Amino acid sequence: MNYKTTVEVILRSTILDVQGKAVENAIHSLGEKEISNVRVGKKITFNVAAENNSNAEIIVKSICDKLLANPIMEDFTFKIEQITNGLEN
Amino acid sequence: MNYKTTVEVILRSTILDVQGKAVENAIHSLGEKEISNVRVGKKITFNVAAENNSNAEIIVKSICDKLLANPIMEDFTFKIEQITNGLEN
Repeated sequence: MNYKTTVEVILRSTILDVQGKAVENAIHSLGEKEISNVRVGKKITFNVAAENNSNAEIIVKSICDKLLANPIMEDFTFKIEQITNGLEN
Repeated sequence: MNYKTTVEVILRSTILDVQGKAVENAIHSLGEKEISNVRVGKKITFNVAAENNSNAEIIVKSICDKLLANPIMEDFTFKIEQITNGLEN
């Protein structure tokens, strides 16, 4: 069965987000001073072929641990949805 | 009032996602061949100070249009939640 997976990777809140700070400065220089605490993370989507939901979870967790997230600086969350016919894209 | 905003920016599906392809190849070289159609987007979170929800929406939409998303290649979605005392971080 095919599963659509969405992984979100964000820097831990204790770690300075340099990219977020740069975006915040750019927003302020556009004149929007109401914005604060900008943080930039990644949203990664992919399809997984697996026998069942729990197998898909094991595969996705392993990929996040090994490759998608830096375990020292980043946290990740993921969600898995089964793709039914007609919804696949 | 303060609003917590989450913006997701993804490349349009018709546009080749080079970063996603690189991640896909890296995943395959780890031995996980069940993965396909990897796409990498951005998830940006920030706080907005605005009078009310619709003002916050106007500010966020303007920032997305001007800075966070490339209107030619990317689509964005956002959601805005009011921050109540004790939940702010």
